[in-house]
Amino acid sequence: MPVNYATPAAAQLNPVHGVRLGTAEAGIRKANRRDLTLLELAPGSRVAGVFTQNRFCAAPVQICQQHLAHHGIRALVINTGIANAGTGEPGLAAARATCAAVAALLGVSERHVLPFSTGVIMEPLPVKRLVAGLPQCQATLSGDGAAWHDAAHAIMTTDTVAKVASRQISIGSKAVSVTGIAKGAGMIKPNMATMLGFVATDAAIAQPLLERLLKQAADESFNCITVDGDTSTNDSFILIATGQADHAEIADAASADYAALLKAVTAIAAELAQAIVRDGEGATKFIEINVGGGLDRAECKAVGYAIGHSPLVKTAFFASDPNLGRILAAIGNAGIQDLDVRTVKLWLGNVLVSENGGRAASYQEADGARMMAPAEIVIRIDLGRGNAQAKVWTCDFSYDYVKINADYRS
Amino acid sequence: MPVNYATPAAAQLNPVHGVRLGTAEAGIRKANRRDLTLLELAPGSRVAGVFTQNRFCAAPVQICQQHLAHHGIRALVINTGIANAGTGEPGLAAARATCAAVAALLGVSERHVLPFSTGVIMEPLPVKRLVAGLPQCQATLSGDGAAWHDAAHAIMTTDTVAKVASRQISIGSKAVSVTGIAKGAGMIKPNMATMLGFVATDAAIAQPLLERLLKQAADESFNCITVDGDTSTNDSFILIATGQADHAEIADAASADYAALLKAVTAIAAELAQAIVRDGEGATKFIEINVGGGLDRAECKAVGYAIGHSPLVKTAFFASDPNLGRILAAIGNAGIQDLDVRTVKLWLGNVLVSENGGRAASYQEADGARMMAPAEIVIRIDLGRGNAQAKVWTCDFSYDYVKINADYRS
Repeated sequence: MPVNYATPAAAQLNPVHGVRLGTAEAGIRKANRRDLTLLELAPGSRVAGVFTQNRFCAAPVQICQQHLAHHGIRALVINTGIANAGTGEPGLAAARATCAAVAALLGVSERHVLPFSTGVIMEPLPVKRLVAGLPQCQATLSGDGAAWHDAAHAIMTTDTVAKVASRQISIGSKAVSVTGIAKGAGMIKPNMATMLGFVATDAAIAQPLLERLLKQAADESFNCITVDGDTSTNDSFILIATGQADHAEIADAASADYAALLKAVTAIAAELAQAIVRDGEGATKFIEINVGGGLDRAECKAVGYAIGHSPLVKTAFFASDPNLGRILAAIGNAGIQDLDVRTVKLWLGNVLVSENGGRAASYQEADGARMMAPAEIVIRIDLGRGNAQAKVWTCDFSYDYVKINADYRS
Repeated sequence: MPVNYATPAAAQLNPVHGVRLGTAEAGIRKANRRDLTLLELAPGSRVAGVFTQNRFCAAPVQICQQHLAHHGIRALVINTGIANAGTGEPGLAAARATCAAVAALLGVSERHVLPFSTGVIMEPLPVKRLVAGLPQCQATLSGDGAAWHDAAHAIMTTDTVAKVASRQISIGSKAVSVTGIAKGAGMIKPNMATMLGFVATDAAIAQPLLERLLKQAADESFNCITVDGDTSTNDSFILIATGQADHAEIADAASADYAALLKAVTAIAAELAQAIVRDGEGATKFIEINVGGGLDRAECKAVGYAIGHSPLVKTAFFASDPNLGRILAAIGNAGIQDLDVRTVKLWLGNVLVSENGGRAASYQEADGARMMAPAEIVIRIDLGRGNAQAKVWTCDFSYDYVKINADYRS
């Protein structure tokens, strides 16, 4: 059960003009579950993507990067069950064959298809079964909220809920939709992107600005989360702009329209990124870590991740035990060589826990215990050495994390 | 229950001439358990230490570093229950008061006493109870194997077994003892040293060589281990040489005597470091990760630790599930920006699992499953880009890790 997250109903999802989605049960790894998704994009759509920094990045990630260089993307194909990572040359051939099959079906060029995979690493992709499932995807293509809802379900692996978010904004007095789906619950410490996230809008925006907007949104969403510190081989975050909303193309990063779209896309991406953490494997708590007073954003992030990755901090949150010295140990362990611990302040919610290198005089353990109890917790740190800040979203570490990951595959 | 480790009997421990040990039940945090240890060193003993790099390093660590600068150390005092870390100025005062009390009892200078603490962070050290326990320590001072045995028990916290190792070597035809104790089971990813490790020898060795030997031994022992990736605030590894063995002082790092002592101290330190991993919180498996073919030792260590810290790899070992793509993902996640995955080879025991960026043609999952089953597992990686190598020792990640750390303190 995720922490304070429920999948929105299909009726709440705004269609994106120029995007149609279809799903199928292709039996990629397990029978009787939707595991194949096809997105068809209208001609003229623009697409940008950011991908994992993992050196063992998956075959589909490598193909995506090649195909995105050409522009003119018309379709995305996504399978679960098998990650097609750690699969060498045969894996690249499998990803290319997948693109070719989609291209033939839709009458587009192979290089205008982006492939995505998620699931078990180092096992071969069953291309024959995947290709056999494509006609069912095509037959179910639709642009309505139910199709987005179905696609959000079809891309799940160890997720317990489908993750989808949607809103409408107004640009040039035209209604613009932003709707997205994501999947992920474990192997989550995105470095440029998350496991799989797809956000589409019918806004019209120039390609370089779309790429810029994507990076800005990723930095405030998928690049702020961690479940277990393991950066996946398949992380991909894709932003699609179909340009069908019929307003004047956004061509200036300083314009109000750009700001409005950035705000909407960032909000959707953040909602999806948070949903991944709320559905983190075994999670019982959602934790926001706000780090301020740093010399630069990087050191604030490093502190946030040192806390967010510490098994000792995460198990203490699971137990609602205010064993908060573990947070100090994690801060000290974040790699800031010249950190003066006497300037560091730590709050749990609005309770000052630590200052001057030790426990705050006003701190009472009962207050700490009270702040550890809820399912939503905010940690705030002031490093006291600058003005930079950053946030990290994470979850606790429970028996069920071990159970899920000891049982996965079996 | 630790993995293939049992505490040696007292009779197997070689006394170190010039070292006496005493213990007491001081009630530091819990009643009815030995929690205070005193080591008394003969005049002329030489001592070297390496300590945690955690910026929130404990008060006793700071005092140790100050006192070691003066040389002439005559006593070590070690309490469990409270780490005296994250305690600010009052923590430093408490550590100094502890040293003063020991100094008064033994008639030595305060600055010739080294203090050590381990336990809960950010709680105040109960100096009064600690000082009240010192006479019992003094009354039980003894140099025999039973005293080492008792001290190994008295420094435990979440350890399930006492950790002690001992051997005798011959230097200049004189018998030389090397005997050591250590504690630690969680918050274990030493960066210079481990939680607490104390190794003593009656060898005679010049101070600069002692410090050099300590660092070399630490690098091949305590600096090779990880349980949970959390670098403690209190890590300390101390090497004592009393010089009572009556051979000519070792004064040349190129001498056979230096090599013999280095070999013995490293063996003892490695045995203790391995014992910590074998007793890792919740551990059911002991895993050695050998990384070779690196450009330098640092990148080999980075790969070893990326694997040793991955919760996904560790839970797969707990489950004996050869989900070995998780190891490839961890290698790709080790921060080697220019790693060419096509040159990487991965073995589990003697089974080649992966090469050319994917699964080895000869690999059968049944072989992987067979190699995952035993309690002792060796992973070997050839990065294929140089001649450097490094090893990391770690353990798996079980339900009991979560249980122990969710329950600790309560």
